[in-house]
Amino acid sequence: MEVYFDNAATTKVDARVVDKMIPFLAEKFGNPSSAHCFGQVVKNGIDESRSNVAKLLNCCEDEIYFTSGATESNNHFIKSIARNSSKNDKHIIVSQIEHQCILRTCEYLEKHGYEVTYVPVGEDGCVDPQDILKAIRPDTFLVSTMFVNNETGMIQPIEEIAQITYQRGIMLHSDCVQGIGKLPFDLQKIKVDAISLSAHKIHGPKGVGVLFIRKGVSLSPFIHGGSQEKGLRAGTENVPGIIGLGEACRIAYEEREDYYANLKSIKENLLSGLQKICDFRINGDLQKMAPNILNISLCGLKGDTLAMALSFKGIAVSNGSACSASSAKLSHVLKAMHFSEERIRGAIRISFGRYSSKDEVNHFISELNPLLKRFTVKV
Amino acid sequence: MEVYFDNAATTKVDARVVDKMIPFLAEKFGNPSSAHCFGQVVKNGIDESRSNVAKLLNCCEDEIYFTSGATESNNHFIKSIARNSSKNDKHIIVSQIEHQCILRTCEYLEKHGYEVTYVPVGEDGCVDPQDILKAIRPDTFLVSTMFVNNETGMIQPIEEIAQITYQRGIMLHSDCVQGIGKLPFDLQKIKVDAISLSAHKIHGPKGVGVLFIRKGVSLSPFIHGGSQEKGLRAGTENVPGIIGLGEACRIAYEEREDYYANLKSIKENLLSGLQKICDFRINGDLQKMAPNILNISLCGLKGDTLAMALSFKGIAVSNGSACSASSAKLSHVLKAMHFSEERIRGAIRISFGRYSSKDEVNHFISELNPLLKRFTVKV
Repeated sequence: MEVYFDNAATTKVDARVVDKMIPFLAEKFGNPSSAHCFGQVVKNGIDESRSNVAKLLNCCEDEIYFTSGATESNNHFIKSIARNSSKNDKHIIVSQIEHQCILRTCEYLEKHGYEVTYVPVGEDGCVDPQDILKAIRPDTFLVSTMFVNNETGMIQPIEEIAQITYQRGIMLHSDCVQGIGKLPFDLQKIKVDAISLSAHKIHGPKGVGVLFIRKGVSLSPFIHGGSQEKGLRAGTENVPGIIGLGEACRIAYEEREDYYANLKSIKENLLSGLQKICDFRINGDLQKMAPNILNISLCGLKGDTLAMALSFKGIAVSNGSACSASSAKLSHVLKAMHFSEERIRGAIRISFGRYSSKDEVNHFISELNPLLKRFTVKV
Repeated sequence: MEVYFDNAATTKVDARVVDKMIPFLAEKFGNPSSAHCFGQVVKNGIDESRSNVAKLLNCCEDEIYFTSGATESNNHFIKSIARNSSKNDKHIIVSQIEHQCILRTCEYLEKHGYEVTYVPVGEDGCVDPQDILKAIRPDTFLVSTMFVNNETGMIQPIEEIAQITYQRGIMLHSDCVQGIGKLPFDLQKIKVDAISLSAHKIHGPKGVGVLFIRKGVSLSPFIHGGSQEKGLRAGTENVPGIIGLGEACRIAYEEREDYYANLKSIKENLLSGLQKICDFRINGDLQKMAPNILNISLCGLKGDTLAMALSFKGIAVSNGSACSASSAKLSHVLKAMHFSEERIRGAIRISFGRYSSKDEVNHFISELNPLLKRFTVKV
């Protein structure tokens, strides 16, 4: 039996999504920009996808821009807003626990004359909105804070942060790649100006994502060329990807209640199974945690060693973000939570998806148990 | 019977490509950056694709960077080289007939202090390498000229241009999206520093492409974040797209001789069929034209009207680039060839691919004939 508990890294594409994509790889192959019949049928497919994405997010279709994924969305939005900012606006606020595509983009902007405040988090792994408020300066033009942290699953107070930025006329962007589809998120309620998504985190294909840009926000093109995506992102569309993304959003929307409940129940099972076999500390606060992620530190154990040993048994968990899986560096997220080096090195992230089951939980627990004895270092 | 003669806009995905992609949408769904078993099998698939691309281009695997398509490759390469250029280097040379993703990128750079020379073409639609030579200034740091023009199919003297730039230590980039896979192109012979490709022009999927960067060329990241594509382009890879691109390149390489010959033979058939039913002028020089494209102007006829009438009969041709299909503007390529407005408005582009057949040519000719009588305007 294989166990895939690394759904925060990526998810299996839903079979219904694959079925929807295949015709757009085969008979519906036209270029959506072509005026002829082969092109127009494809354009209609893209329009339908845009409508499904908008429904999941509760926004307008023309606020949805397709990109190659959340990393691109995050990069392009932040760089474009920075380029468009007035000469006096030089200050950006992000949290210390952002994904590295936000942090590296900020470092790039710092080299080009911008100033960035990296707001800390508490031991619970959450930003305090008051810390955002305190960091605001007269020259602050952008705040970017994620919706759900990818390593800990901690839900950030994005609605409260949005109230602060909205009242002050400061742009708010949120990397929502981990939260959408697993938690309610309503763009009519949350006054965020832009959010980023990736299809592959919600059982859609890799290589396609979304940048939501609220009406009225003005941006310069990310990629110059043709008029695709209203001239903001030129280039022939990733048609199969966009079709898959739309179907993934449709399913995420229609099956949301059952899905949230299932994730919650699996996590409860896992926690009770773990409690029977080992001592562990939860890296975060269960009360403010997304249902699909659990980050724990096992006492006296190294997360990377354990993850590798589990991999040999066909069980996938992670010892951090997939994007930095090959790095020996300590997690910047857990460091920001002021944990000891031992606790950080002992961390593993277990993350669920649509295909996760209680059988997987049982198998995981039964395979983990002997490994604990083998790998625990007496400290 | 349907006829698809718009292969320069996009091509039908080869069934073998689709078959190769599907496992990477279904059971092989891991994140290639994940260290565990689910990730590593996907990483191996990406490596194999990179190797197939390198074989087609005759370059090293580590000179291949995957992107979302040629438009992105063109944008990112030119902007990155410009950002990295020394303060004294301010001048770029491109041809007047480049794709708009090059031209719009140049206009963007002109707004940011760079100067661009737009080199003309002759009546044959080709750049004269001597014009490139004459345009070079002490502050020229980049030349970008396409391999095959997308509207006319005219092959540009990229090898001669490369000799000029190489001798002078000026970077040469080439948008090769239309030529590769239809004509021999050998990176060991042609001293170009960077080229751009899209999978969907060679019977691969939309939304994925290549930027070849010759070893030794130093660039700053296009998209900041994780370490994907050696840190130049962060973000979870478009795995199904990359797998499809690799297979498309493998087929293009292995079947190249038969394919070139087939395209040539279909064009000959088309030309002889056309000669029997109408007066037309070839927009370009048949001797220097790629085998898959034919751009003609029909006397006294409007290209857009004809293309639409053909579309109603299930026949796809184009009256220009797909990326500007919805624009009423005159083709900048045909304008650069100094044709009359009547000739430009009368132009249609007919372009072939792997699935084009002589039956399609015959059907096209038989359907075109009555339309000619109906739509010809006496002048």
